[in-house]
Amino acid sequence: MSAPRIDRRRLWDSLMELARIGATPKGGVRRLTLTELDRQARDLFTRWAREAGMAVEFDAIGNLFARRPGTEPTRAPVVMGSHLDSQPSGGKFDGAYGVMAGLEVVRTLNDAGVRTRAPLEVVSWTNEEGSRFVPTLMGSGVFAGVYPLAEVLEQRDAEGASVREALAAIGYAGNAAPHPVGAYFEAHIEQGPVLEEARTTIGVVQGALGQRWFDVVVTGMDAHAGPTPMEARKDALLAASRMVLEVNRVATSHPDYARGTVGSMQVKPNSRNVVPGEVRFTIDLRSARDATLSAMVAELERRARAIEADCRVAIAMKEVVYFPPSEFAPELVGSVRAAARELGLTHRDIVSGAAHDAVYLARVAPTAMVFVPCAGGISHNETESATPEDLAAGCDVLLKAVLARAGAVTT
Amino acid sequence: MSAPRIDRRRLWDSLMELARIGATPKGGVRRLTLTELDRQARDLFTRWAREAGMAVEFDAIGNLFARRPGTEPTRAPVVMGSHLDSQPSGGKFDGAYGVMAGLEVVRTLNDAGVRTRAPLEVVSWTNEEGSRFVPTLMGSGVFAGVYPLAEVLEQRDAEGASVREALAAIGYAGNAAPHPVGAYFEAHIEQGPVLEEARTTIGVVQGALGQRWFDVVVTGMDAHAGPTPMEARKDALLAASRMVLEVNRVATSHPDYARGTVGSMQVKPNSRNVVPGEVRFTIDLRSARDATLSAMVAELERRARAIEADCRVAIAMKEVVYFPPSEFAPELVGSVRAAARELGLTHRDIVSGAAHDAVYLARVAPTAMVFVPCAGGISHNETESATPEDLAAGCDVLLKAVLARAGAVTT
Repeated sequence: MSAPRIDRRRLWDSLMELARIGATPKGGVRRLTLTELDRQARDLFTRWAREAGMAVEFDAIGNLFARRPGTEPTRAPVVMGSHLDSQPSGGKFDGAYGVMAGLEVVRTLNDAGVRTRAPLEVVSWTNEEGSRFVPTLMGSGVFAGVYPLAEVLEQRDAEGASVREALAAIGYAGNAAPHPVGAYFEAHIEQGPVLEEARTTIGVVQGALGQRWFDVVVTGMDAHAGPTPMEARKDALLAASRMVLEVNRVATSHPDYARGTVGSMQVKPNSRNVVPGEVRFTIDLRSARDATLSAMVAELERRARAIEADCRVAIAMKEVVYFPPSEFAPELVGSVRAAARELGLTHRDIVSGAAHDAVYLARVAPTAMVFVPCAGGISHNETESATPEDLAAGCDVLLKAVLARAGAVTT
Repeated sequence: MSAPRIDRRRLWDSLMELARIGATPKGGVRRLTLTELDRQARDLFTRWAREAGMAVEFDAIGNLFARRPGTEPTRAPVVMGSHLDSQPSGGKFDGAYGVMAGLEVVRTLNDAGVRTRAPLEVVSWTNEEGSRFVPTLMGSGVFAGVYPLAEVLEQRDAEGASVREALAAIGYAGNAAPHPVGAYFEAHIEQGPVLEEARTTIGVVQGALGQRWFDVVVTGMDAHAGPTPMEARKDALLAASRMVLEVNRVATSHPDYARGTVGSMQVKPNSRNVVPGEVRFTIDLRSARDATLSAMVAELERRARAIEADCRVAIAMKEVVYFPPSEFAPELVGSVRAAARELGLTHRDIVSGAAHDAVYLARVAPTAMVFVPCAGGISHNETESATPEDLAAGCDVLLKAVLARAGAVTT
């Protein structure tokens, strides 16, 4: 049996119809988690899933599960999914693509009359973005046992509403029981420039980078820019600038997809003719290996001590986030690669620099991801853009990899 | 005739009484120019000057002139002065010291029965600080012909009040005619750390540093810190940080009291996990020689071009202030040095890193300044502090230098 192919037009139209919910004037989407707009998106997905013959239920944190039975009901389902919530100024594809691609896989199998041994599920995880409620990856984190449900339900947004209240308000506090996952596949736009720059359609995702985030305070001494000789200064911004260069150097000189970013900086007193007495900035370090992350941190700490002495300042680094590297299941990653090859698609191995729901699923089930290019690597932005061709290609890869895992029943 | 010595206690008490006008809880002074508090300070100075036998008048920009006649009335006066206005969170000595030291010189000569050939004047220049109305050095700038009176009178504060209205409101819009200045002496706290660190009492000021100020915009590209490889970035903060290091390097490697400061920086979008796409910062370059300033600017421009290429960003530097270096009159500087030596005071040559009214007076008259230490080099701050001993020593130097110039009449 030759594998069926997905319907490019149907996938695109579904994405565009979904994107009307929370559409922004600039062509993006603002659909914050557990809002009325999120409810509309959930309702639409639920309707489409039922129309595709699936049974829909949701759990206590609002994760939505749409199930297509398998011929061997005792097997754990092969799950596809992502999320329907968006950033405050988000795009049409981040999250939505993974859910709609899962739905399109099911629709395609229905049209082709293909049944699978294992059941299939399409999932939308609650609050991946973390824009309204922290933490990010909330629904998948609860599902994977990373976050205690009771604590997460009490998290509150800026207006004081709790997750529990918001779930109840939109009618998506459910009681689906936790269940085993046989395998988890997530299709997603890359959110980076690698595929586009390499003119490659499919990213075979090996795993996700670990992250270590720091808040840094440099304490020097305010001084007048005019009367204070260079050698008498304790310039906090000079020291902070040297640290920025070190973060860059450490990241570029380490292996394992090492990345280092200073994204935020505040200068005090921030006056044109005053030598800055205090600078606060952030460091975001990433790498595919924990040992590399540790080596980067150790090197930065050493350099901070040297800069302290040179600039006569104090540098305090405080770790605020640690997120371990995650490695996807080799057999699933291999099936994604094989699917791309068999479909004649350009493909390359890639790592996810950002966290995804797949990162938490990987803790409880064999997991893989499929990346497709997005224009300019831009995401979390209303201008986020991807082509129907690339989205369809990723969905075809997803279909083949899912079939390989779930087992097509020859009829 | 041995020169008389000033009254340390009287000088200190006058400074402390003056500092009650606009006193802040933390021991500083908030006495913005042309406010009711400025009026009170002017009134107090006027009363003290008249009690010392001086005639007081003020000109159209509110500069206050208190005159003690000389035995040769046709000679241009020897003028001492500074300013009575303060920064919003200012100290007791910046400006006030120069005016009170001039008054103390006259009081001392009165007590000793010493007359001078040239008339003496004690001046308080309007709005040196520029905190309420720009430009800074307003009164001395108008007096020296740098700023047109008509334009300056129309400058407005944040509430929309003009200089003209503010002068009228406190009754200090006068009609004193412009007049020649035979010599100008200004005593001032150093506002820097040099004298204190060198344990030296008297700074013999050679002149003031020239200043070139720039606004800089670095334009890169926002990118997600996770998915964007190091080599794909256009990191505006990395480029800006390299420029901060260059500003420091250029200043420390040039002669002529070269100084370079990045005091202010804004990062966009200033988010922890986004590579910054735009950074704006300021550069403040100073040196005693114009050629050195030019060389520093040229070197920074060259380095900016190299950093643009390395970091794949654009760097635009726009000059916003140019203030030429000013050299004080050698014969007056020599008399300040001689006075310190004769009084047995530790002294050293120094340059003023900041601008003072003396800088504009130097354009129309032989000019010199006397610096005394301030604690920690701190100024423009409520904690600004100087000792009665140092303030008295500076005033004694002022007295001797003024007498040398004005000519004491032996009686």
